[in-house]
Amino acid sequence: MINVLIVYATSYGNTKRMAEAVADGARSVKDAEVSLKESHEVTKNDVRACDALVIGSPIRHRTADARIKQFIEDVCEQLWLTDEMVGKVGGVFTVGGGYGDCGAGCELAQLGLYGALAAGGMILATLPKTTPGFQSAGMHWGPHGRSGGPGMEPIGITEDMILAGWHHGANVTRIAAELKGKDLLARGNVAPSKELVELFMS
Amino acid sequence: MINVLIVYATSYGNTKRMAEAVADGARSVKDAEVSLKESHEVTKNDVRACDALVIGSPIRHRTADARIKQFIEDVCEQLWLTDEMVGKVGGVFTVGGGYGDCGAGCELAQLGLYGALAAGGMILATLPKTTPGFQSAGMHWGPHGRSGGPGMEPIGITEDMILAGWHHGANVTRIAAELKGKDLLARGNVAPSKELVELFMS
Amino acid sequence: MINVLIVYATSYGNTKRMAEAVADGARSVKDAEVSLKESHEVTKNDVRACDALVIGSPIRHRTADARIKQFIEDVCEQLWLTDEMVGKVGGVFTVGGGYGDCGAGCELAQLGLYGALAAGGMILATLPKTTPGFQSAGMHWGPHGRSGGPGMEPIGITEDMILAGWHHGANVTRIAAELKGKDLLARGNVAPSKELVELFMS
Amino acid sequence: MINVLIVYATSYGNTKRMAEAVADGARSVKDAEVSLKESHEVTKNDVRACDALVIGSPIRHRTADARIKQFIEDVCEQLWLTDEMVGKVGGVFTVGGGYGDCGAGCELAQLGLYGALAAGGMILATLPKTTPGFQSAGMHWGPHGRSGGPGMEPIGITEDMILAGWHHGANVTRIAAELKGKDLLARGNVAPSKELVELFMS
Repeated sequence: MINVLIVYATSYGNTKRMAEAVADGARSVKDAEVSLKESHEVTKNDVRACDALVIGSPIRHRTADARIKQFIEDVCEQLWLTDEMVGKVGGVFTVGGGYGDCGAGCELAQLGLYGALAAGGMILATLPKTTPGFQSAGMHWGPHGRSGGPGMEPIGITEDMILAGWHHGANVTRIAAELKGKDLLARGNVAPSKELVELFMS
Repeated sequence: MINVLIVYATSYGNTKRMAEAVADGARSVKDAEVSLKESHEVTKNDVRACDALVIGSPIRHRTADARIKQFIEDVCEQLWLTDEMVGKVGGVFTVGGGYGDCGAGCELAQLGLYGALAAGGMILATLPKTTPGFQSAGMHWGPHGRSGGPGMEPIGITEDMILAGWHHGANVTRIAAELKGKDLLARGNVAPSKELVELFMS
Repeated sequence: MINVLIVYATSYGNTKRMAEAVADGARSVKDAEVSLKESHEVTKNDVRACDALVIGSPIRHRTADARIKQFIEDVCEQLWLTDEMVGKVGGVFTVGGGYGDCGAGCELAQLGLYGALAAGGMILATLPKTTPGFQSAGMHWGPHGRSGGPGMEPIGITEDMILAGWHHGANVTRIAAELKGKDLLARGNVAPSKELVELFMS
Repeated sequence: MINVLIVYATSYGNTKRMAEAVADGARSVKDAEVSLKESHEVTKNDVRACDALVIGSPIRHRTADARIKQFIEDVCEQLWLTDEMVGKVGGVFTVGGGYGDCGAGCELAQLGLYGALAAGGMILATLPKTTPGFQSAGMHWGPHGRSGGPGMEPIGITEDMILAGWHHGANVTRIAAELKGKDLLARGNVAPSKELVELFMS
């Protein structure tokens, strides 16, 4: 069994739609067990139990949504302290509108999510340009569902973007299935105590 | 009078200390009026009134603190909609610990803050390497107070880091003083209504 | 007199067209003297002499063109060593195609250019969303001329993108005109010798 | 047999030392065949033949070295056109000095390299904080050998940094060994012709 956890936040439903597509793609893989949760519902045990974690966020003013950021601090950062995310497989996706025909900040937003996974020592799935739907949702780090046109007209995310999300979910799950239970990464350091770390945080 | 607003969040006091240094540096400039506020206290009118805005954040798992992110969504993104930040002067700073002797994600964290200011159409102050304290706090986008050593020992931010923060505050303020009241930037587009924008956000 | 230097590389002419638009915008400002040069032609003295520097690059596989990178190493990095770029005004622009409807890496490419200016201690102009043409060329860091459609069809850059470039050039020049000759930034550190620095570079 | 290719550039030998450590780590894995090449020596067939590609670069003024950038354009971008990098495993490392105690731009430099691999549709290895040597070389995207102290004193890269590089090479190779020959990623799009793409590049 491959446990896949998809975490998202949504305001008007577009990110939820993309998250559902990612979940459906994950479910298409043999032996996958998929959880789809809003960020505030996710516990540390949910993340401990997963083999693959996909984080999806609305873009809010060029970075991830504050709700997703709260999840990263409350759950991911805690499990980073205790090295409990090392070797899991990760992916990201985003949804957003925004003026301009050149991304409107979705790259840096995705990299902020990606960094939370990288800090955990995870293995990261990208979005190959051979993925169906890439022509619409194709940021190389992960799918981006552009929910508005260049002039901010409310187009909503399209079937092609959803297709890219679906395949991203399937890709991540297949990679996790191959790597599950393997002990591939060197482990030598000891985690500092949470108490020590707190002393110099902010 | 040059109105300078410094916005920060803090958990153990280090970011507050750096924010106070930035504020003191700003106050050293003739005719500066400086407000130092925690992120949850800041109103849209506070930002509307300022000539320069400096945002400082703890680094939490490689990006800005969720409290700062909330401020960006609640205040900055709203004023972006109505184009009320265009032409103001901006700067950023961060504080954080973290393993490793190479930044621990502070660059991407600072760029997330910087992006919020850039999206607003602001003019951005960097941190020149000629700045006193740069050798300790010298990320080029803005000062970073490293509050822990490479092994996460609780060193706390140093006088040199505070010195860099002080000069950053003074630099930002002097730039804002020169540019205040000037109408330097082309304005041609009309902002979309908030209602329209909401339709395709996340 | 305001000396504005625009540096670019081009392969098929689109980045050159955008560079010419930036130059024309700069020339529209009173007392501006504008140089438009391909990256391999630019000398250290050209950069020393300028009040504003705008770097424009084709996007090549998600970052700036190697020719522009060579200019940054041969000219900008050398003047960084001797602190000769501190306080100048800077801006960036890019041109590129690429699959996908979400930027295709232009944000990180622009930030790589922006970082070269920030490291120099420059004051950075962004691209406000009020800028005419922003709806087509609107990356917030600087204009991006998208020269291909989502399916890589050869659309070429449009009049709207060129308009954004024109206004970016004018904006940068007006900011530089206000700041020229002012000594706004703290200077306290002494540059290390080039010889010392070379010891640990790569 | 697992074919691992490590590509680097070097000026004073430090990046070469780190590249050799990555190669040695890769060689420690059963059935690994490792090539270590300077960037100008690498052919498209070298990259076609590899199961894992690790790119290491000196940091030059906040991004990768122009020689590495040339390799990315001449080799990686060409194989991106024809989708020949999809599903390979990738990693990055950097070496550099620089003022400041907070990374001096190594994060954005690493992400520029990482983006070249992501664009190719590769699966990316990060550097877990459990890796021996992480306390010295621990950027989460990949090892960074800091070759100078905060005051630019020529410290050179240390044994701990080399240790992190060694384990990074071993980690990447073990992941590639697990994934070799598996067909895990959806493939649906057809690559555009090189001739078409050239029309709108820069």
